[in-house]
Amino acid sequence: MTSGTLTTRLNVDLGTRAYNIEIGTGLIAAAGAKVRDLLPTPRVFVITDTNVADHWLEKLTTSLDDNAIRFAVKVLAPGEQTKSMAQVEELTHWLLDQGVDRKSTLIALGGGVIGDLTGFVAAITLRGIPFIQIPTTLLAQVDSSVGGKTGIDTRHGKNLVGAFHQPLLVLADTGALDTLHRRQLLAGYAEVVKYGLINDPEFFEWCEVNGQAVIDGDPASRRRAVEVSCRAKAAIVANDERETGDRALLNLGHTFGHAIEAEAGFGDQLLHGEAVAIGSLCAFELSRRLELCTGQDVERVRAHMTAVGLPTGLDGIAGPGWTADVIHGHMARDKKTEDGRMTFILARGIGKSFISRDVAMDTLNDLLSDILPK
Amino acid sequence: MTSGTLTTRLNVDLGTRAYNIEIGTGLIAAAGAKVRDLLPTPRVFVITDTNVADHWLEKLTTSLDDNAIRFAVKVLAPGEQTKSMAQVEELTHWLLDQGVDRKSTLIALGGGVIGDLTGFVAAITLRGIPFIQIPTTLLAQVDSSVGGKTGIDTRHGKNLVGAFHQPLLVLADTGALDTLHRRQLLAGYAEVVKYGLINDPEFFEWCEVNGQAVIDGDPASRRRAVEVSCRAKAAIVANDERETGDRALLNLGHTFGHAIEAEAGFGDQLLHGEAVAIGSLCAFELSRRLELCTGQDVERVRAHMTAVGLPTGLDGIAGPGWTADVIHGHMARDKKTEDGRMTFILARGIGKSFISRDVAMDTLNDLLSDILPK
Repeated sequence: MTSGTLTTRLNVDLGTRAYNIEIGTGLIAAAGAKVRDLLPTPRVFVITDTNVADHWLEKLTTSLDDNAIRFAVKVLAPGEQTKSMAQVEELTHWLLDQGVDRKSTLIALGGGVIGDLTGFVAAITLRGIPFIQIPTTLLAQVDSSVGGKTGIDTRHGKNLVGAFHQPLLVLADTGALDTLHRRQLLAGYAEVVKYGLINDPEFFEWCEVNGQAVIDGDPASRRRAVEVSCRAKAAIVANDERETGDRALLNLGHTFGHAIEAEAGFGDQLLHGEAVAIGSLCAFELSRRLELCTGQDVERVRAHMTAVGLPTGLDGIAGPGWTADVIHGHMARDKKTEDGRMTFILARGIGKSFISRDVAMDTLNDLLSDILPK
Repeated sequence: MTSGTLTTRLNVDLGTRAYNIEIGTGLIAAAGAKVRDLLPTPRVFVITDTNVADHWLEKLTTSLDDNAIRFAVKVLAPGEQTKSMAQVEELTHWLLDQGVDRKSTLIALGGGVIGDLTGFVAAITLRGIPFIQIPTTLLAQVDSSVGGKTGIDTRHGKNLVGAFHQPLLVLADTGALDTLHRRQLLAGYAEVVKYGLINDPEFFEWCEVNGQAVIDGDPASRRRAVEVSCRAKAAIVANDERETGDRALLNLGHTFGHAIEAEAGFGDQLLHGEAVAIGSLCAFELSRRLELCTGQDVERVRAHMTAVGLPTGLDGIAGPGWTADVIHGHMARDKKTEDGRMTFILARGIGKSFISRDVAMDTLNDLLSDILPK
């Protein structure tokens, strides 16, 4: 390309459902040309939210126009409350009103909410139609847009209704990160750190050195953070698409995180990535109390979260009922709970995480009591 | 078994998603023992409707109790209006309230509505949990319970939202057919005849001879009708699980049938199987007008439908707007329409059906005008 843009291409190796992830700048403006040959027919439905539409929608639709791809656009309200069954019903009706058919393709232009919702709508409309992810937040680029998990929330918690449905293509335009609020960027960065904590101690070291540059906007650092994260996730997903085994490692920090989010109300009060930061630290602290890792490991995780400005506890986060019992109750309803036994991702050190269903409830409840706001 | 019951077992060969269909009498009362070893954990949620519950629920729950399988039951209103997004949302909330987990299994006890709805809820709850089909109508036994198509209706038409989700097991208890109204039984029989019309001319001949016995309740004839139908469907589904090719043959009579149903209102006015009977005849009549089959073929189909008491036209069926344009519009919204081209299952004779996307619209519209109520 004349712009001299560097694009990295990764493949998620899922047999007949394999797809590419492209990472670089200028990808939204080039989307029409990138998707044209992948579409079963040149007709797409773009789903986005008002925040993202302001910055990126015109670039996308211009590139679709330039490539003779017919499109219709639905702009939704931003925020987690959009991931609802009511919204799914409204979107499916809109698509059917427009004459969607099995060769039509949905495009999710936005963060995790838009991606999860659009993917789920694609999974169930006409029993499944293709979709493309164009993630515009760091969180979506490094986590939710890759791997085919789609879904919506219910009053019981996040992502409790959904489907596995792999995209045709993921276009992660790191230029989109320039329009994010710093707090959103930081929240996404918690998922980047997670890949180091799971199984890549060198990447955690890289984060300790370069994390601030990722957050401050250095293009090369951002590209590397997204690339390493996507590569790590793609490898895990390719081995275990439907989470019958190691894919659960990706939930490091999420059993605690989802429970904390459920209580805080899935809103601006506490962003998902912030909950994951707190949850990851809880997972390490629980591992320490179970004598699996050292206090130094825990302090290193805490120090990095603090250094970049991520929260490390519940202080200052209003929740209607912060009690150990309430958090425990949310955790027990996690999707990974089986026969009443909760699943935890624990760690024997940084980059040495594993799946455990044998956590003593006393130890857990003591920890939950200790993390409550003082 | 001491009762000396004969049970036929068929396998739907779908690799890791393969499952058995058992056909015979006494299967509902034996369900607990049949399912026990298949369940990931001995906990099930039974979904049924008031009509079926009156006759069969206690037999099922007794057998679950006898096999130490924990269960909860949801009894819904009967009828197509139950296949709605609102009902899906209510059921998922009920399951989550009860603490459903990924090892829990749903059991659909009922006809096509209960099976399609329950299967779809199983497909999307926690991104997919197991389910078992216990079909209690002839239609569900020979068609909807086999093959993994699940879904609900929208105001645009039937089954426009759904998922492919294969059951763990299908138990087709032909004894359940004894409690059906004759009209329901007849409607299901239209789907039995369909298998002869698709690719089994000898089975159509068998139907001409034995159809009345199937409807009148002869146990051996019923078992054979269900067995041949399930075997035919299982073979087609095993070759083309997600309907990218020959599976569409199973829709013989359905492009017309769904359009007619959409206009009649998906209620008691016109049952699905009745619409399929009319639609199958339309498909043969269209084939004749396209000079693919003979007038004798059409008359043989019409004569058999008439002989058993199935409707062969729209006379006497109230629809708010029976016009050729309106029916055409419903057909154009069929899931199999691609790039605006409708898919038809046509026939070069009885048992010689094939898929066509090249039907001249003039010929279609003339036919639609001719079938309107006089």
